[in-house]
Amino acid sequence: MEKLKQRILNEGTVLPGSIIKIDGFLNHRVDCAFLGEIADEFARIFDLSQVDVILTAEASGIPLAAVCAFKWGKPMIFAKKAKSDNIEGGLYKSEIMSYTYKKVVTLILSKQWLTPGTRVLIIDDFMARGEAVRGLCELVEEAGASLSGIGIAVEKGFQGGGDRLRQMGLNYHALAVIEKAEPGIIIFRDEE
Amino acid sequence: MEKLKQRILNEGTVLPGSIIKIDGFLNHRVDCAFLGEIADEFARIFDLSQVDVILTAEASGIPLAAVCAFKWGKPMIFAKKAKSDNIEGGLYKSEIMSYTYKKVVTLILSKQWLTPGTRVLIIDDFMARGEAVRGLCELVEEAGASLSGIGIAVEKGFQGGGDRLRQMGLNYHALAVIEKAEPGIIIFRDEE
Repeated sequence: MEKLKQRILNEGTVLPGSIIKIDGFLNHRVDCAFLGEIADEFARIFDLSQVDVILTAEASGIPLAAVCAFKWGKPMIFAKKAKSDNIEGGLYKSEIMSYTYKKVVTLILSKQWLTPGTRVLIIDDFMARGEAVRGLCELVEEAGASLSGIGIAVEKGFQGGGDRLRQMGLNYHALAVIEKAEPGIIIFRDEE
Repeated sequence: MEKLKQRILNEGTVLPGSIIKIDGFLNHRVDCAFLGEIADEFARIFDLSQVDVILTAEASGIPLAAVCAFKWGKPMIFAKKAKSDNIEGGLYKSEIMSYTYKKVVTLILSKQWLTPGTRVLIIDDFMARGEAVRGLCELVEEAGASLSGIGIAVEKGFQGGGDRLRQMGLNYHALAVIEKAEPGIIIFRDEE
């Protein structure tokens, strides 16, 4: 998605350790109108008639998933991190490594809200090593739901998470794949 | 908001400790189309011409704030909980008590994204003792921004957070104020 790449180039910064900050429009201060354009791009890629629900993980995936779900007239579920007293029994769980927080976190999802046969489109803002998406896929499998696709706004291609999903033959698409990120330098992978 | 109250009565459950679960449409599985109706109700209450940005706290406030921001053509900022390595220096911070997680958490907000003079509308899904909103108000004050209003979908009126804000004379509105919640019983406060 050309406009997304341009915004990453114009507004993004790269911190040491190839940490890409685009938190001025994607995941801290959020340009929700632009998220609507990202939703339109996903709608061109995925067959939404085959999607019952949008699934994401808290917290930074929620704005994009919510705007997609709103525009497409679908419900959205966000998997929660860690145990809250306000979620009673009956949970699907998946442990993932959070490199942002440098610890293992448990994604949880109430069994009540994801039932067998439901067709799920996973949406997330960022993919690096792909731990969050791996956890979400596990939740889908635990639920006996089916995975219609995985849509990611920005993939850090050099960290391998996206390529692993491609090799698995999943219906995976990222709108901007960053091949190299160093302070002052962002290079995108050629279009698929 | 009559339709919100009806959905709470029809779909909500009350756990011991007056914990109100409406996570089938508001904050786990999310009915984003209905969030759009809540956004329309807020738009009748608040003068959006006096609002530059929507502010909420992660995680459960984000879907509602995102849909509001999308419908209103405004940017949205969500304050994060705890320190992430991906947010470099320059933070506004506020410590709040999370009764859900039974611990003190720190709300953080990058100074880059909330600047002096910005007119802020705080949006959140739930208000109990009002700790999250208190923290968000502190962030607004630290930033030298101005508070245009506070909009809450569901207030647990019997826990006092909303009344404290009313007594302070803030432009505070909740769309459904629950006066009593016990297993099998939900009673709303009379309309303001």
